[in-house]
Amino acid sequence: MIAEIIAVGSEMLTPFRQDTNSLYLTEKLNCLGVAVAFKTIVGDKRKHLVDAVRQALRRVDVVVISGGLGPTEDDLTRECVAEALGRTLTRDADLIANMYARAAARRVTITRNNEKQADVIDGAVVLENGRGTAPGQWLDIVYGEHRKLLMLLPGPPAELKGMFEEQCMPLLEDALPKRAIATRVLKAAMIGESQCDARIAPIYQQYPDVETTILAHLGDIQLNLTCSKPFLPQARLRVDELASRIEEELDDVLYSSQGESLEQIVLYYLGMRGASLAVAESCTGGLIAERLTNIPGSSRSFVGGAVVYSNELKTLLAGVDPELIGSYGAVSSQVAKALAEGIRERCSTHYGLGVTGIAGPGGGSEEKPVGLVYLALSTPEETTVMERRFTGDRHRIRHLAAQQALDMVRRRLM
Amino acid sequence: MIAEIIAVGSEMLTPFRQDTNSLYLTEKLNCLGVAVAFKTIVGDKRKHLVDAVRQALRRVDVVVISGGLGPTEDDLTRECVAEALGRTLTRDADLIANMYARAAARRVTITRNNEKQADVIDGAVVLENGRGTAPGQWLDIVYGEHRKLLMLLPGPPAELKGMFEEQCMPLLEDALPKRAIATRVLKAAMIGESQCDARIAPIYQQYPDVETTILAHLGDIQLNLTCSKPFLPQARLRVDELASRIEEELDDVLYSSQGESLEQIVLYYLGMRGASLAVAESCTGGLIAERLTNIPGSSRSFVGGAVVYSNELKTLLAGVDPELIGSYGAVSSQVAKALAEGIRERCSTHYGLGVTGIAGPGGGSEEKPVGLVYLALSTPEETTVMERRFTGDRHRIRHLAAQQALDMVRRRLM
Repeated sequence: MIAEIIAVGSEMLTPFRQDTNSLYLTEKLNCLGVAVAFKTIVGDKRKHLVDAVRQALRRVDVVVISGGLGPTEDDLTRECVAEALGRTLTRDADLIANMYARAAARRVTITRNNEKQADVIDGAVVLENGRGTAPGQWLDIVYGEHRKLLMLLPGPPAELKGMFEEQCMPLLEDALPKRAIATRVLKAAMIGESQCDARIAPIYQQYPDVETTILAHLGDIQLNLTCSKPFLPQARLRVDELASRIEEELDDVLYSSQGESLEQIVLYYLGMRGASLAVAESCTGGLIAERLTNIPGSSRSFVGGAVVYSNELKTLLAGVDPELIGSYGAVSSQVAKALAEGIRERCSTHYGLGVTGIAGPGGGSEEKPVGLVYLALSTPEETTVMERRFTGDRHRIRHLAAQQALDMVRRRLM
Repeated sequence: MIAEIIAVGSEMLTPFRQDTNSLYLTEKLNCLGVAVAFKTIVGDKRKHLVDAVRQALRRVDVVVISGGLGPTEDDLTRECVAEALGRTLTRDADLIANMYARAAARRVTITRNNEKQADVIDGAVVLENGRGTAPGQWLDIVYGEHRKLLMLLPGPPAELKGMFEEQCMPLLEDALPKRAIATRVLKAAMIGESQCDARIAPIYQQYPDVETTILAHLGDIQLNLTCSKPFLPQARLRVDELASRIEEELDDVLYSSQGESLEQIVLYYLGMRGASLAVAESCTGGLIAERLTNIPGSSRSFVGGAVVYSNELKTLLAGVDPELIGSYGAVSSQVAKALAEGIRERCSTHYGLGVTGIAGPGGGSEEKPVGLVYLALSTPEETTVMERRFTGDRHRIRHLAAQQALDMVRRRLM
């Protein structure tokens, strides 16, 4: 069983945008034992899209098409798949009624052009879109004497993922022969990719039946372990055994053995201890708070804090003595310490985190270069300060600083 | 003239790796007046690669193939292109000699399997690789009565870029008719994609020589206008004329006519007025601050603010009267107003922004459902409050709220 993923949209044929849905879709298809053999990106041109769909139908068993289901003139996926299949397209009255009802409930008016989203290919099952207006379509058909599975999915990632997870996965599981695939995701913080690989390669090379992939991204390492066997217990056994040996080798560098994010782990530990956290962020400018509050239920342990971008705010919101800033500079271990202690006291939390640094591109000096970051973690007992010198651009420095800060909290809580 | 980019390599058909060369290649091809019509990603399978090359030769004029030129068993691009073209492959003795000479100069030994890198397709011009061992190939041929340009390039980005820039660009400039491309990027906030399209389609349809693409992402609309003409002034004239008419139609919904982000525009307006801004974020949890501080130089106008996730912090950091929260609830227009006014006063800024809402998935009620957000903007003269009801998941609601908040500031500053 092989698949082709077709991403539709002229924007993905510009130098500015890339298809990202295919990474998610590949992961899900692989879990079902379907390998992706081709990925095609095609623009909003009728002739080209029909051609791409025809080629896919000719060469693979499963065709997943994303994008081009919206209401605009450019959205041609329905028409083009119908043309490629030689099937008719019928406007579904129920879908239209549903569309207007939902718009009314949300108190928005929708324009007539939205109605084309209710066009259904002959023989297709309509896939409801709980997160947007464009419904998807599922086809399980015979084409040129071969069975083909086709999915038309909306382009926006949240809509596509929801629809694929909730509706396509069960349909695919029914339609495809059973395969057992076990996976594990391990995560480590603040270790280099090659350093990590040098430590674990001698281990994973002893498991040729487990595919091990290393992904590195801004202070975060993700290890993906995948094993396919006729039966799930066999596959799971191998993956778990390898995971245990890697955990042992990486020890406390590893923060997650089930794929959780660093912020999830931090919140989990805080919750377990019934402890609360507040942050005072200068160079990270809200990044730490944003990552923590992105997790549902984070309010149980994370109260918030201050983005103290200007020196005045360091004093006003986190109680930093202006003389301290005057003597040592805003980017100093003293000010990081005062930020952590100040925000902890102001917010009456168990833990206080303070971050100050030079994210660049301007603002650096010989003594205090771009990339210099001080991080402090305060508890009622003590305050620890860490100095880091990161390299790279503003984006990289900010993200590395936020990652380091969260890892500092995790290590204290462990 | 249209092109297809084929990226060869099974690793790009996993959930973990993506082709990135195509973004660079697209930019360069566009500069030469060549639009990319298809991108194909194919693995190291002979049958699949031959098929991909054949399809490309059938449907486009220019085919750029990256990857699969190395010395391993998996590297099949030379063989597959030769097969697709029905041409022979000859091992070039000079290239082999050159390869061994270079290895000797670098004091490395190379294995026999490297010799396959000297296989040249009949009629191809060899492209030297100054940054690696695999040479590229250039073909300017007649295939099925049509002229086709084919390039075989190495996969590693540095090698591909060097080879394309130094050798393919001059060859393409000679081979292609002269064209010039003008582009413009317009951006609009908080308007639906279909609503936007309904308003501007009657305009851009009058400019069939300008390609107009609409990109929608969480309350942000990006319009890409591209026009290709023999001479640049002609192309620029058409793009600018269409841009002006769209600007007129969308009026104040449009926030950028040169591609700037909403946060850049907000900071630009604040800077022009010598005004400062502070934010008090509840449901957006740092997202607004993070977007603003991501822009270099933002500290000139943005001082920071508070992430007031808990009710206590709304009082402690933004001075909200606890009785107000008790009477109206944390998610209310009254509390949004108090947040905006409180943070403005605390931070002594010209503008204060307050956001409170229910991001979900929990915490909603019939009266105050998930997605309900109150936004307030305070100035020394007055405070305005806006109520919005967003739909979707936590991620979407948070991002729409942040976008709406920034747009609220922009509109006030305009």
